[in-house]
Amino acid sequence: NTPVIIVHGGAWSIPDDQKEASVRGCVNAVKCGSKILLEGGSSLDAVEAAVRVLEDDPVFDAGHGSVLNELGEVEMDAMIMDGSSLRCGAVACISDVANPVSVARAVMEKTHHTLLVGPGATSFAHKHFPVTPKEKLVTDDARAYYEKYRYQSAVSNFFNTTATPTESCGDGDGHGHEHGGVQGHDTVGCVAMDMQGNIACATSTGGITGKMAGRVGDSPLVGCGGYSDNHSGGASSTGHGESITKVVLCRRAVSNLERGLSVQNAAQEALDYMLQRVGGRGGLIMISPTGEVGYAFSTPRMAWASRVGTSDVQCGIDKDE
Amino acid sequence: NTPVIIVHGGAWSIPDDQKEASVRGCVNAVKCGSKILLEGGSSLDAVEAAVRVLEDDPVFDAGHGSVLNELGEVEMDAMIMDGSSLRCGAVACISDVANPVSVARAVMEKTHHTLLVGPGATSFAHKHFPVTPKEKLVTDDARAYYEKYRYQSAVSNFFNTTATPTESCGDGDGHGHEHGGVQGHDTVGCVAMDMQGNIACATSTGGITGKMAGRVGDSPLVGCGGYSDNHSGGASSTGHGESITKVVLCRRAVSNLERGLSVQNAAQEALDYMLQRVGGRGGLIMISPTGEVGYAFSTPRMAWASRVGTSDVQCGIDKDE
Repeated sequence: NTPVIIVHGGAWSIPDDQKEASVRGCVNAVKCGSKILLEGGSSLDAVEAAVRVLEDDPVFDAGHGSVLNELGEVEMDAMIMDGSSLRCGAVACISDVANPVSVARAVMEKTHHTLLVGPGATSFAHKHFPVTPKEKLVTDDARAYYEKYRYQSAVSNFFNTTATPTESCGDGDGHGHEHGGVQGHDTVGCVAMDMQGNIACATSTGGITGKMAGRVGDSPLVGCGGYSDNHSGGASSTGHGESITKVVLCRRAVSNLERGLSVQNAAQEALDYMLQRVGGRGGLIMISPTGEVGYAFSTPRMAWASRVGTSDVQCGIDKDE
Repeated sequence: NTPVIIVHGGAWSIPDDQKEASVRGCVNAVKCGSKILLEGGSSLDAVEAAVRVLEDDPVFDAGHGSVLNELGEVEMDAMIMDGSSLRCGAVACISDVANPVSVARAVMEKTHHTLLVGPGATSFAHKHFPVTPKEKLVTDDARAYYEKYRYQSAVSNFFNTTATPTESCGDGDGHGHEHGGVQGHDTVGCVAMDMQGNIACATSTGGITGKMAGRVGDSPLVGCGGYSDNHSGGASSTGHGESITKVVLCRRAVSNLERGLSVQNAAQEALDYMLQRVGGRGGLIMISPTGEVGYAFSTPRMAWASRVGTSDVQCGIDKDE
């Protein structure tokens, strides 16, 4: 098989001044993962390495650059899945570690379990990886968004204009009172197929600024933030986590491949359904069992990059690219 | 619509001396939920009430009666989902609360989020529900299983006979070295359809004896432990959590209804697929949009009970019933 890889750096209203850095970050990640694939490495190694590059890049809300929750803390989520065996590993609400995707892989390979959360997960992480204190993960931007969020939140509470909690905001912003430039959805992800035809996926996120302590979005949930099955295809998602969870977005997108849709149409149908059924927006990257690669997004922008074999790296961020 | 309700009390090798109590507990839960439906109550109210009855019954591994993790602690998971809107709420790794399913409902109705985990989730729970200390949740049986597990674990480590962590055990027992009477899979769940045709589901569990701190199985994960959509049908699962997660079991079972299978065949296909693809066993209860009710299990036994309208309560635990 010709190795194929695609990454995303989040689907949201990416501001103009972050466009270039977001696309460049995706290109760097694809190059790193592609190198592994072209040397005969596994798709599992490639998606982990690519997501680590994205986690290490402070422009993305994952690993270094993660946003802060309502308490001003970093709580990160990640998953990884091996399409040959459906083995998967995930972590949620972990802190003080640089690369949650590698902890997710350790859950898959070193435990009987598929998901570890909270202090138990952080404790497991520190048995296998160095402690990385919060100070090394939090950027000035993340702190600024947190301060802005708290201010907006105080205002909306004061004037009692917050959207009712049970309503889906439907604008892809996560919170009804968080319009504008809030950095909230640049979850990162990767799907890759190696020379053996094995398809793997990985997704990692810092979540939404001002989220409740303990909140987990779609990213670490198998079927929601990612899904991979050699027989059917692989997908990684980004966008409004609660909406993605309600429709089990990646499983739906992969099911669309099973019933014969092209990757482009499979991704588009799943996103259209999510918008129509629960009012949520997001993005998807996908690879089919025959190596067809594609993406779609219902948000204003999604940073992405891909490479098929040794051809030129493709990348983009706007709808018309 | 004629109201319909079905509950399960876990799919595993239920020992003979727990048969009667398991079935009786399911019948009690169905009666409680059915009463609400026949009085015109919502399916959401019915599944919550039925699962609370199961959580309060110490014979089941959920709420009161939850098993202990590797540290001897109780960490509980639950989810609830409203098929009319796909709204859902879930909690994982919470402690010191009597009814996790009600906390899951509070997440759905009082927050912007769909899943809260760990200390953040427990802290949220205690804002809305009384603190129930561990001593009130843990039964003598749960403690006995914990002691037995630790002993067996020590033996298997000593003789180095533990199954390799990356292998699926495939026997529905959660751990390769835990055969026999270990109480581990009597996760509880309920699916109901009310007079308005709304389908809801709920699932709750204490997990597997000796699980790692922070381990989350399928129960609180949308699409895995439960799924409900008025247009497609509802399902709640039980069994080997890691296997259920890998195949996103309930979403698959509901997708089977979408493509025209009967509830019985939809449940059976999903369980057959799970056994064949990842070597895991479990059980499913389901209701179709037309009110067809059914169940299936690939474990030796599954306790269940159901009621259609005002007809007699049906119940069972063995394959030939």
